[in-house]
Amino acid sequence: MSLQGWSLPLSPGGAASLVPPPPWHFSGDVIGIDFQGDVGAMASVLPRSMQPSEDGSATFVFIDWSSASETDPRTAADPARGQYKEAYVAVHATVDGARAARVPYIWVDNDLSFARGHIQGFPKKIGTIAMTRPVTVGRGGPKVEHGATFVGHVASLGRRLAHGSVTLQAQAAAGFVPKGMRLPIWHTRLVPDLAGGPPLVHDLARNVLTDFACVDVWDGDATLEFGESDFEELAALAPREIIGGFRCSIAFTITGAEVRPA
Amino acid sequence: MSLQGWSLPLSPGGAASLVPPPPWHFSGDVIGIDFQGDVGAMASVLPRSMQPSEDGSATFVFIDWSSASETDPRTAADPARGQYKEAYVAVHATVDGARAARVPYIWVDNDLSFARGHIQGFPKKIGTIAMTRPVTVGRGGPKVEHGATFVGHVASLGRRLAHGSVTLQAQAAAGFVPKGMRLPIWHTRLVPDLAGGPPLVHDLARNVLTDFACVDVWDGDATLEFGESDFEELAALAPREIIGGFRCSIAFTITGAEVRPA
Amino acid sequence: MSLQGWSLPLSPGGAASLVPPPPWHFSGDVIGIDFQGDVGAMASVLPRSMQPSEDGSATFVFIDWSSASETDPRTAADPARGQYKEAYVAVHATVDGARAARVPYIWVDNDLSFARGHIQGFPKKIGTIAMTRPVTVGRGGPKVEHGATFVGHVASLGRRLAHGSVTLQAQAAAGFVPKGMRLPIWHTRLVPDLAGGPPLVHDLARNVLTDFACVDVWDGDATLEFGESDFEELAALAPREIIGGFRCSIAFTITGAEVRPA
Amino acid sequence: MSLQGWSLPLSPGGAASLVPPPPWHFSGDVIGIDFQGDVGAMASVLPRSMQPSEDGSATFVFIDWSSASETDPRTAADPARGQYKEAYVAVHATVDGARAARVPYIWVDNDLSFARGHIQGFPKKIGTIAMTRPVTVGRGGPKVEHGATFVGHVASLGRRLAHGSVTLQAQAAAGFVPKGMRLPIWHTRLVPDLAGGPPLVHDLARNVLTDFACVDVWDGDATLEFGESDFEELAALAPREIIGGFRCSIAFTITGAEVRPA
Repeated sequence: MSLQGWSLPLSPGGAASLVPPPPWHFSGDVIGIDFQGDVGAMASVLPRSMQPSEDGSATFVFIDWSSASETDPRTAADPARGQYKEAYVAVHATVDGARAARVPYIWVDNDLSFARGHIQGFPKKIGTIAMTRPVTVGRGGPKVEHGATFVGHVASLGRRLAHGSVTLQAQAAAGFVPKGMRLPIWHTRLVPDLAGGPPLVHDLARNVLTDFACVDVWDGDATLEFGESDFEELAALAPREIIGGFRCSIAFTITGAEVRPA
Repeated sequence: MSLQGWSLPLSPGGAASLVPPPPWHFSGDVIGIDFQGDVGAMASVLPRSMQPSEDGSATFVFIDWSSASETDPRTAADPARGQYKEAYVAVHATVDGARAARVPYIWVDNDLSFARGHIQGFPKKIGTIAMTRPVTVGRGGPKVEHGATFVGHVASLGRRLAHGSVTLQAQAAAGFVPKGMRLPIWHTRLVPDLAGGPPLVHDLARNVLTDFACVDVWDGDATLEFGESDFEELAALAPREIIGGFRCSIAFTITGAEVRPA
Repeated sequence: MSLQGWSLPLSPGGAASLVPPPPWHFSGDVIGIDFQGDVGAMASVLPRSMQPSEDGSATFVFIDWSSASETDPRTAADPARGQYKEAYVAVHATVDGARAARVPYIWVDNDLSFARGHIQGFPKKIGTIAMTRPVTVGRGGPKVEHGATFVGHVASLGRRLAHGSVTLQAQAAAGFVPKGMRLPIWHTRLVPDLAGGPPLVHDLARNVLTDFACVDVWDGDATLEFGESDFEELAALAPREIIGGFRCSIAFTITGAEVRPA
Repeated sequence: MSLQGWSLPLSPGGAASLVPPPPWHFSGDVIGIDFQGDVGAMASVLPRSMQPSEDGSATFVFIDWSSASETDPRTAADPARGQYKEAYVAVHATVDGARAARVPYIWVDNDLSFARGHIQGFPKKIGTIAMTRPVTVGRGGPKVEHGATFVGHVASLGRRLAHGSVTLQAQAAAGFVPKGMRLPIWHTRLVPDLAGGPPLVHDLARNVLTDFACVDVWDGDATLEFGESDFEELAALAPREIIGGFRCSIAFTITGAEVRPA
């Protein structure tokens, strides 16, 4: 009678566990929009140990992910398990003088991603996310080429939260990585105690990554609008100026986390 | 710059937080099937501090829930937020000689319920759940009456996991509570550490409940079948004998938790 | 080699057919909001043979349906098949001097209902619909009683289309039927011809109903708001005045249709 | 007061109409499995004017589609509108001695595709479909390369209907088109009359296509299994022998239909 599993549910064989242990591999197609919002509003979503940018910079990101587990072939073997879409806002900041980002709000459409995200400190909720995917032949959708428009939108509880688009202009030089894709993200890990004590977990964490790659980067003109929801504070971060957009594919492996006090 | 929220996501106003603090109020309509499975298989899903029943007894439960938060009126105000369906198996056991149950596997269709469940130790995954709801007029569905059949089924990742039914026979005496509804459930709270240490949280917990009610109880003949999934070990608990079924409405308030070592 | 089925898909045994033939039985719980909008906008959604009301009257309706088929027990036997939610606007009008209604726009969350609706002329699209359901015990949601608020909302393609609520005031006298529930609805049946000819079907139809019942009627104060979508013209019918709301349960059987020229 | 729209819903501006008129453009990524089933079962899903193959040949197909409308830019502009997944079985046959196919059963996850399909005679139902999509960088999923496995599965009403996979072996010569992608498909257009008469529409139709393209074709080893559902007869067509699989991208434009008596 020994229960197995890195995460719940525990089971005799360990096959029921929702989240397998890292390393986790990720490959995704990204639609990103760089923008500036209210400086005070951006500052207000940061924990104390993060310093706001001076210009209210942020990036809204839609990603169509494929994910795999080093030790559990089922994650990649079943597309319903390992594939998902997510949408998030990354607020630019600094930590101890180094550039960083904070993701105060994020939505995904898959429970593995939801649970795996909370283990990292990503404050995920379930949402409905749509993203234009490129075609390679025919006229059913855009190809990855000059003038093609890629759209993303996310809704939760029946409310439209964000709608963005990027119309591709030019392919970036090899090796260029959009800022929104290279900033380390500091999360708050927070697990409340139903028994009434202080939080069982409360610290800051950032993922330890290996094998980062960013390819097929295009920049472009962008649009971005946020919607209202009783259940969200995203609208306070609404764009005042759209800086530009990009589309790219990224990949990395998460092997662990670096932790510091909250 | 002070972030608010009992749970993630933290936000300046605290409105983005997914799970509000307890007390939480619950009202639900239940379809339950009592059955016996392989004694060893039932024993194997229990933690060390729980002792198995001698006869492999368990209850499979479908519940159509409405939930509310004492301090957050939004939970009940929006049906997309507070209402959800869940399906689970409760394995009968004892703890220190007292009757108890273990819910090794459970599926829900709502992210608030998912996150709130994990805070309790309920090892929830997202599933697709259907339950017959009664009608009060006409012939579009069954009424709550002798001979009416109520069906529940749950699927996850496109696989049928369980299908059960209860055909109502007789209304129970006032005050009767089906065993599967009165056993205290001991959960494992488990939060893995992405930084590679031992689990950040690992103990046993049971909810502290008030205002428990169980009404409109009917018993009946039942069916129950489990299906296979690469991602589950539910099938090992498959029914060898169906004891009977019930339908009822229940309610309670969760105010906290009692905790003991894992 | 004889294919069976009242509707597509045809199959050797007829079991694959999506829509079984009538009679169809319906039982539903209704949240309705009576309102007035722009008179010209209301008139503009009517076919030529319908005359607009003078005051721009309409009713927005959310219904949580259970449906059954006289000849196919599977519809009621599986809750995933026969149960669904729908949301629609019914514009009040007259036909040949008799009171009637037109449902220009309607959304459902079930493909049987979608296809069965198009056979009637209901211009259904798939949407995501949430409705407060009452509880019978506890505090997880509202009971059907004075002061309780019932909410409905509908979204499609990630856009909120309508959000309404009714706060119950008083139970109606037995036999009272809200106007929005008693007006015969004239639909346009329209099937375009992919081969380029005129429509294969183009006429007006209303359902032939039997066994109509409307019970447990409450009136109340109401709210109603419409949202924008690129794919809809509902917003043109937005409420200028809210008349009031109601909650009730209804039932009827559809046995056929009465048809007239478009 | 003139209502606009090629399909329902009609509206003053024509913007509410679900299906815009052709031409329709399609681009899709395909996972296909060629197999043989029971010869009599395959014959039994054909209409009288189609002759069965001698060997029970069929192809099961999963397609991740992007679709666009020549006259309605909204279809391609919103990924939630124009993109969808579908799964179907194509039974090989002949018509007047010419090779053809019949799609007796098909599932999609989008209401535009559902309605547009029924206009063609595709007997679509709503299902939940998952397909492995390739990655271009990293290890989150397979790349399009030798040894990579692509999986598709489809469920409806919580039942797994089909699960297939193709493990890529070799890229096909330029210009090669898998048989399952080149056979013209004859559909039954069938619209029942709720008023009790004979069907309002009942004939056979095949799409008129232009600009057909099939690229990036790989063949491979395949698996295919069908599941049971009370609502389907697919299982009667279950594979007895798997011939092989393929992955490719296809595109075409539908401009109209050719029609013949049922």
